[in-house]
Amino acid sequence: MSKNEKVAKHPVISSRRPLANTGIFRIEEMNLEFSNGQTRCYQRIVGSNEGAVLVVPMPDPQTLLLIREYSAGMERYDLAFPKGRVEFGEDLLDAANREIQEEVGYGAHRLDKISSVTVAPGYLYHSTHIVLARDLYNQRLPGDEPEPIEVVRWRLADLEDLLHREDFNEARSIAALFMIREWLEKEQKPL
Amino acid sequence: MSKNEKVAKHPVISSRRPLANTGIFRIEEMNLEFSNGQTRCYQRIVGSNEGAVLVVPMPDPQTLLLIREYSAGMERYDLAFPKGRVEFGEDLLDAANREIQEEVGYGAHRLDKISSVTVAPGYLYHSTHIVLARDLYNQRLPGDEPEPIEVVRWRLADLEDLLHREDFNEARSIAALFMIREWLEKEQKPL
Repeated sequence: MSKNEKVAKHPVISSRRPLANTGIFRIEEMNLEFSNGQTRCYQRIVGSNEGAVLVVPMPDPQTLLLIREYSAGMERYDLAFPKGRVEFGEDLLDAANREIQEEVGYGAHRLDKISSVTVAPGYLYHSTHIVLARDLYNQRLPGDEPEPIEVVRWRLADLEDLLHREDFNEARSIAALFMIREWLEKEQKPL
Repeated sequence: MSKNEKVAKHPVISSRRPLANTGIFRIEEMNLEFSNGQTRCYQRIVGSNEGAVLVVPMPDPQTLLLIREYSAGMERYDLAFPKGRVEFGEDLLDAANREIQEEVGYGAHRLDKISSVTVAPGYLYHSTHIVLARDLYNQRLPGDEPEPIEVVRWRLADLEDLLHREDFNEARSIAALFMIREWLEKEQKPL
């Protein structure tokens, strides 16, 4: 934090109450009082404390593995990196290794957590951990997907072509793509 | 699309019904039949058709403007690019110009749409349009924020330091940061 930045005093949450619980989504209402006395009533969707993992599997230093599957939220097939929920009590790297075995058909001997990102911090309590998976080995675990997932290989050097595709537009996957490239470039640099 | 990629046949949505409507969030249940005969019941959150804008304001070719504000979803102050909903019937570049006048205190003579991204396509119907705003001028519109928004200037060249900050972790802002850098680099290149 640079010296000209102020540290904001957090608002006080004066009350919160559940509004809806659909079995999948839990929505709560929060009444907040900001440090200047202003009050607001917000709603938010409460995800799991464990969050999710998004995994970038690389079978070799030049290649990424993406998956194409149906996105019920958008009602279309999308290309993205494999992802899934971290189960309660599960280590996030174990979750990453499980997800790629279920969705891509590989396990990884080498897993690095690159970053944790949020998707809609204004109204969604949720974090996604971005994991780079390398030293892959063939291993398939049964998943709960309704149809076989198509795995698409992409060269990291062709990043720009991927960004131009109509079906590659999930913000977490785009962020992961660039962060992985930076991470790998840094790894290559001599100290 | 490369020639070895299949075109997936979309599942049939056999029924959908509203599950909850909190005034802010609308949740619906969908029954789907995939082309292989498998059926699934999914829930999704339905956002507005107009979507949102995320704006990257640049007062000069080296500088980005970020805002720090309270994120009720995550219960903390976060650093991100200004964003907001596109109103019904509003042009998305007009929405971008309005948002930065409300949140940053500038309007822009030059607005370019860079891309549209999704945030959680598996369970959220929502798109965010990323807009680059340049040729800024002083202009403030009243917003609905509970407290003054802090504006933070950042040098594009210091992108890596920004990524290392604890409070900069929203996937759309990270994706926008890299996409803007690519866009600007391409603009600089002679044809």
